[in-house]
Amino acid sequence: MENKNRPLIFVSNDDGYYASGLAVLIDIVSKYGDVIAVAPESARSGMSHAITIKEPLRLTKIRDDAGVKIYKCNGTPVDCVKLGLNQAVPRLPDIMVSGINHGSNASISVIYSGTMGAAIEACLNGVISIGFSLLDHSADADFSAAKAYVENIFKFVLENGLPDYTTLNVNVPKLPASEIKGVRVCRQTHGTWKEKFEKRTDPHNHDYYWLTGSFNNFEPDAKDTDEWALANNFVAVVPIKADFTAYHVLEHITKLNHDNDD
Amino acid sequence: MENKNRPLIFVSNDDGYYASGLAVLIDIVSKYGDVIAVAPESARSGMSHAITIKEPLRLTKIRDDAGVKIYKCNGTPVDCVKLGLNQAVPRLPDIMVSGINHGSNASISVIYSGTMGAAIEACLNGVISIGFSLLDHSADADFSAAKAYVENIFKFVLENGLPDYTTLNVNVPKLPASEIKGVRVCRQTHGTWKEKFEKRTDPHNHDYYWLTGSFNNFEPDAKDTDEWALANNFVAVVPIKADFTAYHVLEHITKLNHDNDD
Repeated sequence: MENKNRPLIFVSNDDGYYASGLAVLIDIVSKYGDVIAVAPESARSGMSHAITIKEPLRLTKIRDDAGVKIYKCNGTPVDCVKLGLNQAVPRLPDIMVSGINHGSNASISVIYSGTMGAAIEACLNGVISIGFSLLDHSADADFSAAKAYVENIFKFVLENGLPDYTTLNVNVPKLPASEIKGVRVCRQTHGTWKEKFEKRTDPHNHDYYWLTGSFNNFEPDAKDTDEWALANNFVAVVPIKADFTAYHVLEHITKLNHDNDD
Repeated sequence: MENKNRPLIFVSNDDGYYASGLAVLIDIVSKYGDVIAVAPESARSGMSHAITIKEPLRLTKIRDDAGVKIYKCNGTPVDCVKLGLNQAVPRLPDIMVSGINHGSNASISVIYSGTMGAAIEACLNGVISIGFSLLDHSADADFSAAKAYVENIFKFVLENGLPDYTTLNVNVPKLPASEIKGVRVCRQTHGTWKEKFEKRTDPHNHDYYWLTGSFNNFEPDAKDTDEWALANNFVAVVPIKADFTAYHVLEHITKLNHDNDD
């Protein structure tokens, strides 16, 4: 039975229900409330805000302890949030956390990130949320230094809330605790990924390509950006919204306005 | 051989290389330049900005006429753009168009849309771009009324460009030409999808769920929004950017700033 005096905390990620980053995150937040986690049954990195339309979704409970329930789902991270909030919770959760992702979601990586897709989906459903990432892709990444920062930011949002339909993108540098300098609230760095495809030929003589690439920071000296914070050993916190409108462009295209009756 | 005096036009979509919306779009834009299209080998609606990391990508030329080349790719719409701009074009294209999508991508649907994922990816690669959608999901949707609007907006952007790293989200109402009232430049409507999962049981007695839902417009009377334009029989044009920062929230969370040396 749910303890109605405790906050209800929804958890998801994109690395899969078995990822150590998810276990660390549940370990931290379960001190503050009852946890229900719904996570992908396999790694779904790079899934962005994708949803599954043409295949049915399945939800399987894999852990049912007092205060911590974990489900796996065959869908994307956003599917996990949609289906989880619809089928796995007794009421709308008080807060949602996503991660801790194995790898950076700073700058433009936010748009490719399944971790952030899940966090954004939660806030679109009226649940305040935070996406956490550590700048270490390895499966056995060391989350020990990140823990205190994750916990403090989680507590702040649990206590203070966030404006409607917004979430936080929190990235933690890959450093021992003694070398992390603090926390910076900042904006998304203007930058893009430059693709480099590695071309190979299979044993049947057909070409195939592996996607690789490197990040181009267009403003490495801008001290109010997440990449600057991370490069200077700070935890970066960027508030995120799902309004894609480029307001500064509206004026540029006013000539497209046309009324057939005029 | 490419005609170097003609614009090079890159085309993609999320409904697949065989979709009639893609054929209509190629038919319109090929009057203005040489077309190279790279589209998914199967329908990839709802794929958002997803990329394929753990599987190799394949690219197959399926049409090679003077002025129009079409490739299919096994990846997502964003993969089609990344791989296409890397492997299928002789130089950076002058413009990219995505669609014409079978179904609306207005309001918050922009975040789930593979059509818009492809258009945004092109602008991140420095190619001005436009995503086009018709509010008709059917495979045999009638694009005849949309054609003139698609062509005019394409010509405007080809001639006037767009500010760097922005794209347009163009949605056309499902109406005969005589009932379309004109074109409105507008902003993304504030609204979300309310999920409704349909639960079924398979012959092996396991539950599964189909994602369905309905759109909630939080501001149906706001005349500067894309949903208002469409509901009032206008073509809606929203300029789009990939900066997710919620600038209005920065002040709300300044207390998170912390310097360990203080």
